[in-house]
Amino acid sequence: MESQQHLAQLPYVLDTFFLLISGAFVMWMAAGFSMLEAGLVRAKNTTEILTKNITLYALACLSYLFIGYAIMYPDAAPTAHAADAGFFFQMVFVATAMSIVSGVVAERMKLNSFLLFCVALSAFIYPIQGAWSWGGGFLSELGFVDFAGSSIVHLTGASAAFAAVLLLGPRLGKYSKSGAVMAIPGANMPLATLGTLVLWFGWFGFNGGSQLALSSTADANAIASAFVNTNISAAGGTVAAYLFTKVFFKKADLTMILNGALAGLVAITAQPVTPPSWLAAIVGFTAGILVVLSIIFLDKLHIDDPVGAISVHGVVGIFGTLVVPISDSGATLLNQLIGASVILAWGFLTSFVLWGLLKFTIGIRVTKEQEYAGLDKVDCGVEAYPEFIRSPEGQ
Amino acid sequence: MESQQHLAQLPYVLDTFFLLISGAFVMWMAAGFSMLEAGLVRAKNTTEILTKNITLYALACLSYLFIGYAIMYPDAAPTAHAADAGFFFQMVFVATAMSIVSGVVAERMKLNSFLLFCVALSAFIYPIQGAWSWGGGFLSELGFVDFAGSSIVHLTGASAAFAAVLLLGPRLGKYSKSGAVMAIPGANMPLATLGTLVLWFGWFGFNGGSQLALSSTADANAIASAFVNTNISAAGGTVAAYLFTKVFFKKADLTMILNGALAGLVAITAQPVTPPSWLAAIVGFTAGILVVLSIIFLDKLHIDDPVGAISVHGVVGIFGTLVVPISDSGATLLNQLIGASVILAWGFLTSFVLWGLLKFTIGIRVTKEQEYAGLDKVDCGVEAYPEFIRSPEGQ
Amino acid sequence: MESQQHLAQLPYVLDTFFLLISGAFVMWMAAGFSMLEAGLVRAKNTTEILTKNITLYALACLSYLFIGYAIMYPDAAPTAHAADAGFFFQMVFVATAMSIVSGVVAERMKLNSFLLFCVALSAFIYPIQGAWSWGGGFLSELGFVDFAGSSIVHLTGASAAFAAVLLLGPRLGKYSKSGAVMAIPGANMPLATLGTLVLWFGWFGFNGGSQLALSSTADANAIASAFVNTNISAAGGTVAAYLFTKVFFKKADLTMILNGALAGLVAITAQPVTPPSWLAAIVGFTAGILVVLSIIFLDKLHIDDPVGAISVHGVVGIFGTLVVPISDSGATLLNQLIGASVILAWGFLTSFVLWGLLKFTIGIRVTKEQEYAGLDKVDCGVEAYPEFIRSPEGQ
Repeated sequence: MESQQHLAQLPYVLDTFFLLISGAFVMWMAAGFSMLEAGLVRAKNTTEILTKNITLYALACLSYLFIGYAIMYPDAAPTAHAADAGFFFQMVFVATAMSIVSGVVAERMKLNSFLLFCVALSAFIYPIQGAWSWGGGFLSELGFVDFAGSSIVHLTGASAAFAAVLLLGPRLGKYSKSGAVMAIPGANMPLATLGTLVLWFGWFGFNGGSQLALSSTADANAIASAFVNTNISAAGGTVAAYLFTKVFFKKADLTMILNGALAGLVAITAQPVTPPSWLAAIVGFTAGILVVLSIIFLDKLHIDDPVGAISVHGVVGIFGTLVVPISDSGATLLNQLIGASVILAWGFLTSFVLWGLLKFTIGIRVTKEQEYAGLDKVDCGVEAYPEFIRSPEGQ
Repeated sequence: MESQQHLAQLPYVLDTFFLLISGAFVMWMAAGFSMLEAGLVRAKNTTEILTKNITLYALACLSYLFIGYAIMYPDAAPTAHAADAGFFFQMVFVATAMSIVSGVVAERMKLNSFLLFCVALSAFIYPIQGAWSWGGGFLSELGFVDFAGSSIVHLTGASAAFAAVLLLGPRLGKYSKSGAVMAIPGANMPLATLGTLVLWFGWFGFNGGSQLALSSTADANAIASAFVNTNISAAGGTVAAYLFTKVFFKKADLTMILNGALAGLVAITAQPVTPPSWLAAIVGFTAGILVVLSIIFLDKLHIDDPVGAISVHGVVGIFGTLVVPISDSGATLLNQLIGASVILAWGFLTSFVLWGLLKFTIGIRVTKEQEYAGLDKVDCGVEAYPEFIRSPEGQ
Repeated sequence: MESQQHLAQLPYVLDTFFLLISGAFVMWMAAGFSMLEAGLVRAKNTTEILTKNITLYALACLSYLFIGYAIMYPDAAPTAHAADAGFFFQMVFVATAMSIVSGVVAERMKLNSFLLFCVALSAFIYPIQGAWSWGGGFLSELGFVDFAGSSIVHLTGASAAFAAVLLLGPRLGKYSKSGAVMAIPGANMPLATLGTLVLWFGWFGFNGGSQLALSSTADANAIASAFVNTNISAAGGTVAAYLFTKVFFKKADLTMILNGALAGLVAITAQPVTPPSWLAAIVGFTAGILVVLSIIFLDKLHIDDPVGAISVHGVVGIFGTLVVPISDSGATLLNQLIGASVILAWGFLTSFVLWGLLKFTIGIRVTKEQEYAGLDKVDCGVEAYPEFIRSPEGQ
């Protein structure tokens, strides 16, 4: 009925379809970051963060198409005329790193400066270090293991964000003169929860798709393991943050629980295939505790991260990278340490220089008056919720 | 080009991928329940219901991994070290039953008691009855047919919820002293609609994936039929509720229409493969009428179900189970009646005992003052919409 | 291990699965239109537009099942007893055209009239012209190329909407007596952004799925190309609208940026496979500029389109149809012009007659008092945000 020649095409067909579907899931994470961040900022900065998120996704894809991909995968065919599934999957990954930055610098950064940095990160900073590992470079030769990018994607984004925050400073009113930490609640908890669940869903494509091929029994089993462990680690992080906040704060703190779920996802990303599922649960649970402690600690240092992304993607990204050797005999703690350190140093230093250049040229922070008025008026001219009367708490 | 050995792996590969993608769709239903319920409660209880939904999903997965799965599928390989696609698909199913409970007990139950019950349902109540049918037990030997779980999943959840509500009582202010039913409108209709559409989308994985294999022509055709009928039945339920409310209430009642869509989905779940599509339309249409009548009737009995889930998943779950023999010659009305009755009795009785134990130990209901203040303050300490000034209607 | 007979079924299995998943993505676009439109109308009309969107989706599917499909594909097997993946994919497409109308006539049309038109469009107007191209009719024989429906789907919807608007008139208060255009801001920007990202995600199914088969290397490569170009064109449209509004309005106008993204998606829909990706970027970029100019221009003509859908799906739909010959040697500009003109004329004229009949029988517009009060009160009786106190701007 079907010729042998047709059948012989099926493995290629399956691998292609697998990467496309996985990539679509990863693209969908752009909605996750958008909703998460829109839920965690104040109403007056919501339109701006939505604008930032959709535009950064678009810019990241274009920058990677025209510049970044050739840097990261120097042996790949030129993409401008040869669009394929592998390129699609890599392209949608890039925006993730930049989305992490977006949340951290929320409510006070100039939109133009942010988008200029987005081009630089997507075209150069991310692809250059990506070439060292996934592109076959020295980290890969060393034996550094980072299956879906706890460090390569998440730590890179968090490092760039950390550099930005040091030069940007905290939001007005976040820390009182006496040094006390003031809560600035997000305006819309359903959106933040929706965003987290979108990311959880999309992460199946992120981690599963990183197997890069589906068509053998071994591939299929690896992907199944990645799906199960991704889900279990996120569940562990969720429960850990729930229990931790219930015990120590006497309340179930939803924003911490959401960050616990995300921490579970980030932690398992470096190696979602090899751990047995009980280990994935422990990794996620630990990450869920770690992220809460890290968020509290950074606040004590007056490092103002409105969405907790430095802790979720940076601190937990490192943690996830370092626990790989527990289940993966191909990795060593030393090599994992080297890999994470190199990526952290690269991401932080290049970003620090770049943010510094932006700061002393076009500027990276809006004026005090603009910050009080809200970025929506300054940069967008459209309010997010124009009809709802708002309390002074949002000022 | 490709070896015969490689090709021979493809059916396994395809079945695995199919279950993983279907399972991801089902996981996504957690977002559907979260948004649906967050839209249908008052603003002051929104953070709590979001907290409940994401935490119950996490707890259900962990409980099923460590305890429930081995009870439900005693012949399956131990899962702690052998994560596979079949386990993934079963794991994400569990949270559905518990999500049904979540909506019914909204706005008045203690969070801790709810989550303790969640562990019990996911680890024991659901898997024990699941073993009787899908696990190959006596209901399966009897010839009971419940393809994707109108009874096994939805009726189980609704039975547990019904038991809870009898012990919990209605929300303050829902029924006046004279016995009149007072409307307590949900705070956010776009969220409720989004949640319904997420569930509709996810249901393709829920019903289609329950074929459990894809790689033969017969499997593929069965799945195609499940997709078409799932969509058509939901469409029928939507239109029925629209027409019914337009004719009898003179207004198109959106919350009823959303429940009509969900009723169409639940009704076809027991057998989405064998009905011709015109029959699926009739099943859905009937379910859409039934759910509206049931919601009105339960309100007359002063059984307070803020989201209508006892009607959608319980009443319509039974209806869906009983109409299977119309198109499926392998089922009989008697066997379907026995199956639904056994599951209803099991779910209700075990839950009643458990909720009773919780009620007379740690308690299941917040105090009157706490209920007026809202569960967000009591259990979470974070408001869902802190900046939007709210009218007294939400009190 | 696997028999040759089993393997021979795999191409059919893969093609079936591909159409089902693609179709589910397209169904999900119903959520995209719902959220986009709910975000862009005022709070007082939000429940109505949600009701309209979910009900139109249901009605469109049923109308197409029972009438439309047999008209559009006269050679296909009768579907009432033979549900298959090809039918599923076609069925979910239909609602897209009607969703376009929904946004354009928002905030002033009677719900009943809208839904009656929905049946007519889904059962007759859309399928009759669909038969001319995808059904193998004279446009197909002519050589008209419209891969996924820039004209067949999007222009048809926009034509019907344009006819409606001419008979319906602008919203009260949209144009002052002196002719000035008054801004009527949408009530919820996060929803509008979410809707756009849902559509972007769903569009991978819309454009990729239109290859209709996956199981050969050529098919898989075509689909990969469609995914890449769909993403790149949307990215181009996003960036273009960002730059254009930033330069000419001095602000990044989020609603324009969202329409820029959608314009990029519509423009590439007529031919997402053959363009090299740099061309897809240019097509999207041009579409992003075009849509902003078109929205401004239509406003000058006092054609009131609350969501900009005539520009996004009509003007850009034509543009997308006409640029096909640049990369597709099988198409000519003349044939593309003929195809677009025929579809525009058919969609506009039949709709104009039908809307006219409705206008002079049951009426298509609510009264002035009802319009001020909002459609939620008139047609639904349920407020979208009952607890949030609203400013007079929303009146």
